[in-house]
Amino acid sequence: MKMISSLVSISSKGNTDIIDITTRVEKEVSKSGLSNGVITLFVSGSTGALTTLEYEPNLVKDLRGAFERLAPEDMEYAHSKTWGDHNGHSHVRASLVGPSLQVPFKEKRLQLGTWQQIVLIDFDTRPRKRDLTLQLIGE
Amino acid sequence: MKMISSLVSISSKGNTDIIDITTRVEKEVSKSGLSNGVITLFVSGSTGALTTLEYEPNLVKDLRGAFERLAPEDMEYAHSKTWGDHNGHSHVRASLVGPSLQVPFKEKRLQLGTWQQIVLIDFDTRPRKRDLTLQLIGE
Amino acid sequence: MKMISSLVSISSKGNTDIIDITTRVEKEVSKSGLSNGVITLFVSGSTGALTTLEYEPNLVKDLRGAFERLAPEDMEYAHSKTWGDHNGHSHVRASLVGPSLQVPFKEKRLQLGTWQQIVLIDFDTRPRKRDLTLQLIGE
Repeated sequence: MKMISSLVSISSKGNTDIIDITTRVEKEVSKSGLSNGVITLFVSGSTGALTTLEYEPNLVKDLRGAFERLAPEDMEYAHSKTWGDHNGHSHVRASLVGPSLQVPFKEKRLQLGTWQQIVLIDFDTRPRKRDLTLQLIGE
Repeated sequence: MKMISSLVSISSKGNTDIIDITTRVEKEVSKSGLSNGVITLFVSGSTGALTTLEYEPNLVKDLRGAFERLAPEDMEYAHSKTWGDHNGHSHVRASLVGPSLQVPFKEKRLQLGTWQQIVLIDFDTRPRKRDLTLQLIGE
Repeated sequence: MKMISSLVSISSKGNTDIIDITTRVEKEVSKSGLSNGVITLFVSGSTGALTTLEYEPNLVKDLRGAFERLAPEDMEYAHSKTWGDHNGHSHVRASLVGPSLQVPFKEKRLQLGTWQQIVLIDFDTRPRKRDLTLQLIGE
């Protein structure tokens, strides 16, 4: 069994930007030479999150709408008093979704459903470079 | 250290069906011959999710109620315009909970609390067979 | 590659107590002698959860506010009829966040962002000791 890690940088527009990173992750599995195992994804930073989604524009809109109901942007957040930045909603949303995800792979293929993509969500209020750790364990 | 993977098929009724799969997972740990390690669970498909819950009928009802508040079924979803299917709420709910879960095991026992069960949630709007990858790493 | 597990007990005040456990987790990585790998965290018990957060008092308040909107404490929960305890909201909140988290480490350092801490959330309605499994896989 082997472990292979890499750090990947993803550009985001922020403001609940939902980015399909499936091809990037597949490439990592392919490069690794491993056939069977699991990939752990982790986004560094407290306003980013990872999950899966059928990646089509309308559903992206629907998911963003849900976050807006869950933690509205124009609400008052105590966090604004701490740093004067207005991304309280970004932090709350990110903590609810979480920064880590695991996807198994088999015969070099991610075990995703046909309509299931891996997405990085950047909740921060400005464009950013996001650091993503991709760590494969397998054989 | 060894890695053992299996693909398990679970029948669901859909419509936020919350299914206790603990016994099925315990069986996999028992079959594996491994004593200590971690099991990664992953549900393929963008309308399924995994978490833990005290599995008793009233709490199942309460959790379903929370999903209904979070992403109501009878709201309008942009996703309906894409395929004409009406499962926008299913996708949104699944993305919020997430498709992966890890549970460590020790001396062949899952490290769950006494009242903590592993549940698969099927948010889709029709009965389905769900593919679940169970992957053990341990020794 | 090696696997090292330990069980850690954390005291909580309950009632959506959000506890920064980063230093505790770092200590475990340091003790392990491993340089690169991934740590899986799992909280036993159906009213506990794990995620990451910029741990500052105002944001802790904001996140607690979000949970109160998501699953209000003073709502009626069917679960109350089962045991007569009034922690339906605790269970619902915990299931939404989830009991497991993974954080990769590299050259003995957790791959967290500068403002990103690991938090254990205890949603139960009374002070408790929480059992946390910390499992490292790496080399």
